[in-house]
Amino acid sequence: MNTPRDRRPLPEALLSQLKERFGAALTTAAAALEHHGKDESWHANAPPDAVVYPASTEDVAALVKRCAEHRVPIVPFGAGTSLEGHVLAIRGGICVDMTRMNRVLAVHAEDLDVTVEAGVTRKQLNRELTATGLFFPIDPGADATLAGMAATRASGTNAVRYGTMRENVLAIKAVLADGSIVQTAGRARKSAAGYDLTRLLVGSEGTLGIITELTVKLYPQPEAVSAATCAFTSVDAAVRTVMQTIQLGVPIARCELLDALTIGAVNRYSRLGLREAPMLFCEFHGTPAGVAEQAQTVQAIARELGGMDFQWTTLQEERTRLWQARHDAYPACMQLRPGNRAVATDVCVPISRLAECIAATNQDIARASMPVALFGHVGDGNFHLVILVDPRNPRDIEEAQALNTRVVMRALEMDGTCTGEHGIGFGKIDFLEAELSSAIPAMRAIKRALDPHHIMNPGKVVAID
Amino acid sequence: MNTPRDRRPLPEALLSQLKERFGAALTTAAAALEHHGKDESWHANAPPDAVVYPASTEDVAALVKRCAEHRVPIVPFGAGTSLEGHVLAIRGGICVDMTRMNRVLAVHAEDLDVTVEAGVTRKQLNRELTATGLFFPIDPGADATLAGMAATRASGTNAVRYGTMRENVLAIKAVLADGSIVQTAGRARKSAAGYDLTRLLVGSEGTLGIITELTVKLYPQPEAVSAATCAFTSVDAAVRTVMQTIQLGVPIARCELLDALTIGAVNRYSRLGLREAPMLFCEFHGTPAGVAEQAQTVQAIARELGGMDFQWTTLQEERTRLWQARHDAYPACMQLRPGNRAVATDVCVPISRLAECIAATNQDIARASMPVALFGHVGDGNFHLVILVDPRNPRDIEEAQALNTRVVMRALEMDGTCTGEHGIGFGKIDFLEAELSSAIPAMRAIKRALDPHHIMNPGKVVAID
Repeated sequence: MNTPRDRRPLPEALLSQLKERFGAALTTAAAALEHHGKDESWHANAPPDAVVYPASTEDVAALVKRCAEHRVPIVPFGAGTSLEGHVLAIRGGICVDMTRMNRVLAVHAEDLDVTVEAGVTRKQLNRELTATGLFFPIDPGADATLAGMAATRASGTNAVRYGTMRENVLAIKAVLADGSIVQTAGRARKSAAGYDLTRLLVGSEGTLGIITELTVKLYPQPEAVSAATCAFTSVDAAVRTVMQTIQLGVPIARCELLDALTIGAVNRYSRLGLREAPMLFCEFHGTPAGVAEQAQTVQAIARELGGMDFQWTTLQEERTRLWQARHDAYPACMQLRPGNRAVATDVCVPISRLAECIAATNQDIARASMPVALFGHVGDGNFHLVILVDPRNPRDIEEAQALNTRVVMRALEMDGTCTGEHGIGFGKIDFLEAELSSAIPAMRAIKRALDPHHIMNPGKVVAID
Repeated sequence: MNTPRDRRPLPEALLSQLKERFGAALTTAAAALEHHGKDESWHANAPPDAVVYPASTEDVAALVKRCAEHRVPIVPFGAGTSLEGHVLAIRGGICVDMTRMNRVLAVHAEDLDVTVEAGVTRKQLNRELTATGLFFPIDPGADATLAGMAATRASGTNAVRYGTMRENVLAIKAVLADGSIVQTAGRARKSAAGYDLTRLLVGSEGTLGIITELTVKLYPQPEAVSAATCAFTSVDAAVRTVMQTIQLGVPIARCELLDALTIGAVNRYSRLGLREAPMLFCEFHGTPAGVAEQAQTVQAIARELGGMDFQWTTLQEERTRLWQARHDAYPACMQLRPGNRAVATDVCVPISRLAECIAATNQDIARASMPVALFGHVGDGNFHLVILVDPRNPRDIEEAQALNTRVVMRALEMDGTCTGEHGIGFGKIDFLEAELSSAIPAMRAIKRALDPHHIMNPGKVVAID
């Protein structure tokens, strides 16, 4: 799918204004444009006309004001790890690379929150928090920036216990389309003060404003952490174990499914010797007695459903290796056909439908002509397919898109969503319309109200033209 | 504060259209208008011109369409328990009483969610859920309707563990200002699909749309529940106990402070014999071992800070009596000067500032000429003053407002909020502007985009004219 590039050349006047304002923090070098014109998706590159590296919220405001005067698109860029073309400059314009705004501004350890600049990454944040005994749990796998994670409403492995960015962002500082700077909230844990602009910006993918700072919740490092793995003879048995665990209210911290193909890929990529069968990777956080109790409950459920090789560990080293393997699932699967790219699906369904949804999806997979791995955050009802495609082969793309569409439409029939965590970007605009058709006019009205000249990451989330 | 009543008579044409459409489900009887012109606040009554009792979302849509044609205000009404004049028809128009839409539409026990009509109350819901082993935790004290709680972003005693309506509403069906019906989301636990209209409507107080149905999260009834009380020689010691409990990450389910004046009032109102000293009321949810562990941790903290009379119970009957006493704090305090009304404050601050904030507030209270009780959800940093005023005495009102303003401004200086859970209504519009001044233009832009004729609960949340 190549969206028409409604591009016009960057006005010379704007470029010289920006050069004067930003000096060496602006570049039009081909390599930089190329780097900023792609994400980790299979979508064709779409480089911007220039890249600016702001050092402050005021820099961003000045940039947006000038772009607004010239009606030039602005596309924010974090780590570039999005999966639906969010950061592609499909209408040209200025890419705002936020990675130089990477200071942890204020750790409020007693309040269990921290205020950071947009470009701080989650791994950097957790490194800087080490001495406090606190941690930031949201973990989408990639070492994404906090603002990028907020803008795409990211989640990942810990969401089943700690929620997503939706639940964990307390306040946002952002630059709106007219260059004004807004602070959406204070640091109170809860507030009933006015419209929830914080959560309107979370998931807005740079189309309503550019997040420059944010305050997120932190959690005390659990007294005890244990990880467990369990193999199953079928994906169905694994999924039913998860369903029962969730329905019992076990406060499991992570609950991941990897299918046999994924385990094989991970074994080769991460040099592990796991049984090549569907597996659950679980993690428990709490007091020593609490995590033991949780693990026993899950083991009992798994045993009833034919779970095998139940292993558990509290050793940091083994846990890290295990979770590294889980996080490597995506690159590991990419090696199933080297040189290919991945079309990643991302549906999420109510947990009562998960087993049925995955079973039907596995029938689709059996008919596919290419390798398709299945894994995901099943505790939330969210799973991914990694469909390997040769991007130069239109039949591959067509088949992958048809499979993705089938999976999405099935999830929607089950009252689920086309995207649990990857977002809409420009790759899923049609699916969003299918999912929330009655809500699209209100979304468009909000977009038009906050971005009347349609310069904020145009062509993403909702179609306006 | 009597807001100017920018009222014009109800157009005869509209009234006859509505009579034809709604028959006996429309009334202009004086008693009904009077009942629908007030809430539980001290604000002067402002009755609507007519009250309509819709039976369906389609009824609401038809009503809004006709009101939109005639540019007549529409004010949604649930249980009428709001505290900032949310439901007052300050510009006249039609009150939409949602209480006949009171069906529990679908319990999805396996998914831990339920879809209800707007007028279902929280107690009704929990009664209907009894057999499922699940419960809905959000508990603002009053037996409010679910849509009213969503519209005001309510919370209450359980929020410290289970979050507020912000975290617990999965999806909303609403009628917008043009009479269109929107469904904001499916039932997936998480989604990154488009702008978060769910949370934009949560807390919008009927100014952006009328919620007609909603899906909320449920939780398994905890295996074990225990309640504990502890008295302290000072409010400060009680607050510090809470701060340390939260900072340790104890998953406490409820954590309430009542000052000595409130305890005295509760003793008289609920016939209890509690020591008239500042007290914490706590509740723990979990496994039997888990709740014992939590209670021990809190008791150890309290003891170090001079806590006395630590009592705990797992008996349902004793727990119910205890929490009834806590919930009766508001009516009990009203009896401190019978015939008076209450000005209720509602600030919430980061927990590190809570002791300081309450200490300074207690100095204000010491100088007040009327009884002022202090209690609240201190685990969230949220507390209330109940300031008793004679509504016919302008000096009382003036003094109470000055005290409220001092408390709010102090909270804002501490990076807190003017309202943790009561909302803005029309009573706190100026405070919202003080708190989030940079965000007000965006809130106004959203209001204008979604309600161009300014008919949806006009004069609430943001000033438009």
